[in-house]
Amino acid sequence: MVQVIPEKFKVGLIQTSCAIDAAANLERTCEKIREAARQGAQVICTEELFRSQYFCREEDARLFDLAETIPGPSTERLQPLAAELGVVIVASLFEKRATGLYHNTAVVIDADGTLLGRYRKMHIPDDPLFFEKFYFTPGDLGFKAFDTKFGRIATLVCWDQWYPEAARLAALSGANVIFYPTAIGWHPAEKAQYGEAQHDAWRTMQRSHAIANGIFVAAVNRVGFEGPPDRGLEFWGASFVSDPFGRILAEASHDREEVLVVECDPAVMEDVRRNWPFLRDRRIDAYGPILNRFLT
Amino acid sequence: MVQVIPEKFKVGLIQTSCAIDAAANLERTCEKIREAARQGAQVICTEELFRSQYFCREEDARLFDLAETIPGPSTERLQPLAAELGVVIVASLFEKRATGLYHNTAVVIDADGTLLGRYRKMHIPDDPLFFEKFYFTPGDLGFKAFDTKFGRIATLVCWDQWYPEAARLAALSGANVIFYPTAIGWHPAEKAQYGEAQHDAWRTMQRSHAIANGIFVAAVNRVGFEGPPDRGLEFWGASFVSDPFGRILAEASHDREEVLVVECDPAVMEDVRRNWPFLRDRRIDAYGPILNRFLT
Repeated sequence: MVQVIPEKFKVGLIQTSCAIDAAANLERTCEKIREAARQGAQVICTEELFRSQYFCREEDARLFDLAETIPGPSTERLQPLAAELGVVIVASLFEKRATGLYHNTAVVIDADGTLLGRYRKMHIPDDPLFFEKFYFTPGDLGFKAFDTKFGRIATLVCWDQWYPEAARLAALSGANVIFYPTAIGWHPAEKAQYGEAQHDAWRTMQRSHAIANGIFVAAVNRVGFEGPPDRGLEFWGASFVSDPFGRILAEASHDREEVLVVECDPAVMEDVRRNWPFLRDRRIDAYGPILNRFLT
Repeated sequence: MVQVIPEKFKVGLIQTSCAIDAAANLERTCEKIREAARQGAQVICTEELFRSQYFCREEDARLFDLAETIPGPSTERLQPLAAELGVVIVASLFEKRATGLYHNTAVVIDADGTLLGRYRKMHIPDDPLFFEKFYFTPGDLGFKAFDTKFGRIATLVCWDQWYPEAARLAALSGANVIFYPTAIGWHPAEKAQYGEAQHDAWRTMQRSHAIANGIFVAAVNRVGFEGPPDRGLEFWGASFVSDPFGRILAEASHDREEVLVVECDPAVMEDVRRNWPFLRDRRIDAYGPILNRFLT
């Protein structure tokens, strides 16, 4: 045996409900990071924009006050925590880069507390009650992977999850797992008719990234109702981890806070990619037109 | 209302078991094409390499005798049939292009019997009992769509179904539906342990193409056991049609021949792509690295 397979690692997914108070949300998430670490999690990921309720439900310039610099208050709190617990933390933050320039950013903090880097959400949605284009400039750092103490990981954010190109690029960067901090939910008026299909499409899409790339996928979503009853959102939770074959290893509920701790074994990637060797046969000579908006 | 939505169209999927006799297989498929047309199908697709049993189970140079030119015997039989029935036929054929040069090809015959064109399978697998690299040169025509009497359609073939790039390019070409003639099955020795996950991964992957691209997907697989009991393959059938939201509209069984006739409404594409407008936000400025084999 020449080959050395990387060691198993345990991921932790923090699914919470957010209060109005940003300081309380930070403390709550820190508490749950401790809980995940106690259960053996080594790479722990928050839900998208965990410091606040999902403010993109409306367009209000005052809400830019929720943004922070990176490094800034959240990383100052999370870096020592990562070092204390000896865990990697992926945290989704509202980044103020300059006056009038903001991003939806995931930071990666290594297990010694080092700020390894950041990923800025590349695909920005804009739908009724998800007015993200008002707040976030699309990322300019490309698709990235990070070498952490517990292996190479990639981060994408929410709307990115609908783009196979993003998952492919994360996988080609050599990551073993893609984290998707997420804030997705139901419009109450649509839930009865479309709710199940929407959730199933979301889950299916991310499982497909795992399958197409032979990689672990961890989606971390918030849970709970936010906003006024008639114009609010019911975030659907259901955070999950898929193995490289698309099999769900663990999945949270739709209706309560949860900490999921799940072991990921790179030997499964080795096995899956040997037996269904999709990376071998990509037609990179013929994919050029994918860089076009449309072909007619 | 300025916009004109294309008319609804009905697809027909021909899921058969293949005998040793190539002539009998052709007649059987023609009969089932008639049956699909009687049920209202307008665009009818065969399973992959429907003229023979799946010969790629072994590497044997004599089996190149199964190949034919295009135009050739199969198109000469199918073109008048298409014209007679007034239906579009997508037929998967073993194409002899020149001595020593073969492709796994899907031809598209319009409803007036015209041979509209061909797609040559771009991604060629090679696994135990699926020794396709021995037989087929990878396609050199790129990813294609065809304007038929009943709308614009794209064809991909089997192994292509694992590649999001292929589905994306088919969708960017303006197709309303992607057909996947397929020959996928279980190794009897693996079925108990992996069979369900394999089938689920296959189904999930193709549903994800429908979702990511807001497009109809029709997968047409063969059914039945071929080969010796210890080294044969159990083709799993389960041909299906997914709508642009990933919802299965119809699905065949694992164990018998079936003709599926399913209505596809382009108004659903319009609705899905308006509400989940993924095509709007693709980061074509940042996908360039996808043209690399790997990024480390």
